[in-house]
Amino acid sequence: MSEVQSIAIVGGTHGNELTGIQLVRHLQNSPTPYSDNFILSFILANAEAIAANVRFIDVDLNRQFHLDNLKSSNSMLYELNLAKILNQKIGPKHSPLTDLVIDIHNTTSAMGPTLIVLEDSDFYREMARYLKQHMPEANILLEDEVPYQEHPYLCTVGKRGIMLELGAQPQGVSRSDIFTQCQSMLQIILDYVDLHNKQALPSSEPVTTYRFGEVVLFPMDEENQILGLVHPNLLDGDFQPVKINEPIFAMFDGSELLFKGDKTIYPHFVNEAAYKQSNVAFSTADKFMW
Amino acid sequence: MSEVQSIAIVGGTHGNELTGIQLVRHLQNSPTPYSDNFILSFILANAEAIAANVRFIDVDLNRQFHLDNLKSSNSMLYELNLAKILNQKIGPKHSPLTDLVIDIHNTTSAMGPTLIVLEDSDFYREMARYLKQHMPEANILLEDEVPYQEHPYLCTVGKRGIMLELGAQPQGVSRSDIFTQCQSMLQIILDYVDLHNKQALPSSEPVTTYRFGEVVLFPMDEENQILGLVHPNLLDGDFQPVKINEPIFAMFDGSELLFKGDKTIYPHFVNEAAYKQSNVAFSTADKFMW
Repeated sequence: MSEVQSIAIVGGTHGNELTGIQLVRHLQNSPTPYSDNFILSFILANAEAIAANVRFIDVDLNRQFHLDNLKSSNSMLYELNLAKILNQKIGPKHSPLTDLVIDIHNTTSAMGPTLIVLEDSDFYREMARYLKQHMPEANILLEDEVPYQEHPYLCTVGKRGIMLELGAQPQGVSRSDIFTQCQSMLQIILDYVDLHNKQALPSSEPVTTYRFGEVVLFPMDEENQILGLVHPNLLDGDFQPVKINEPIFAMFDGSELLFKGDKTIYPHFVNEAAYKQSNVAFSTADKFMW
Repeated sequence: MSEVQSIAIVGGTHGNELTGIQLVRHLQNSPTPYSDNFILSFILANAEAIAANVRFIDVDLNRQFHLDNLKSSNSMLYELNLAKILNQKIGPKHSPLTDLVIDIHNTTSAMGPTLIVLEDSDFYREMARYLKQHMPEANILLEDEVPYQEHPYLCTVGKRGIMLELGAQPQGVSRSDIFTQCQSMLQIILDYVDLHNKQALPSSEPVTTYRFGEVVLFPMDEENQILGLVHPNLLDGDFQPVKINEPIFAMFDGSELLFKGDKTIYPHFVNEAAYKQSNVAFSTADKFMW
């Protein structure tokens, strides 16, 4: 496992997710630890969206980091061009200067502090274990349905990349408890990298991990109007199991829609505001010990 | 007390507050009670904002119903013209056709189901008492700092007007539990009006009521950057008392800012996302028995 010498800490990839924006601003003005062990850079990714207090101006910045996108010619879309600038600054994706990108997000879902990892490797597994050991309330979400480099996420322009996802927090709101939680989570991740570099990691135990499955859409009529809402049982507790034949939607007509899959699922990104335009109600996951 | 013969039920005054929008759509397609006792009309106020899933297009529709605004000439601002159209349809404010306007809102604040009343009169007081009797978890908020007609709110184009404010719910999200709560709350209000018309109201008891005081801004530096967040003690429990010298802000530097007023306050609209652009952290209230 190679040493991590440069780390980019990113906030404001989505301009209305305030925790990362405020934490990056705060850290830019604070003395930071580990200056001898690795170079930390702080980035506010989408300045225009931050100023406008919106997720994005034209398109979702955090879906523009496909290798093909980054090679394409200039675009009229603000975030497509911004992705290329950030790719030059932090990446480039095919041959990154930055060893680790930590991209901080908020969600309107009750996911607590969640570490999102995009690849099943020793480095990330040990990070997950170390985090969980020092922050038992953290959740680990592994999205490895495609290879690391094929993800469209900003953090993948780094040699390694992770997302910190903190919720529930409405867009445009900053909760002090979540800000503090994010500070702690980031510190634990940096502690982990420090120990990793020094080859001084303590022994670790397997951790409960959720692996992304698929997205579930709202029930809709032929005119694309939704017919119901996520069932109360699924609110305020992402990653809680839902078994076959348990209700997942409360319909406006008073009936319930039951889950008709073939195994227990662990819903997350439940009622994420940003996914409403795609009619996504929640994502599913499997659970395993990593 | 005169009879209430016509009621307008309004959703989507703010296009990203989904409960009212979905409830109005649902009621438009449902058989409604009381058809003999009063005429119900259903209105989705800001169609453009609803379609765009934003609070407003140009300006906040729910601040455009000053009498002066409604008399002014045509404007480039979408909501200013829309206010005039709605005023003709539901009002007009100086001589209303509609006896009662019920305008449904959501807030990102943990205000629970709150009835907002703009005038201290028998009709509203008895409504508050009846609601609280049938929905003990409801809160009553009286905003009578100016006379009823001087408020800029949409509901004031009715002879009488109230707002139902339900939270906490992020903008662009619809929670099934809050939808159900709103349905119940609206039903209780309609039951009250029915009994009022029949002069068949049961005897009532005084209810705890909060009276709007003032808005409290975030602490800011000279460059208008906020220096801290609403203290964790004030989260998830609007209308809980804050006493003199109790902390109200958690500063980014780790310190706390204490409340330096001269009497206990009851914060509400805590961390309302829509008020962030005005740097409003929360509103204060007094408590009294009404």
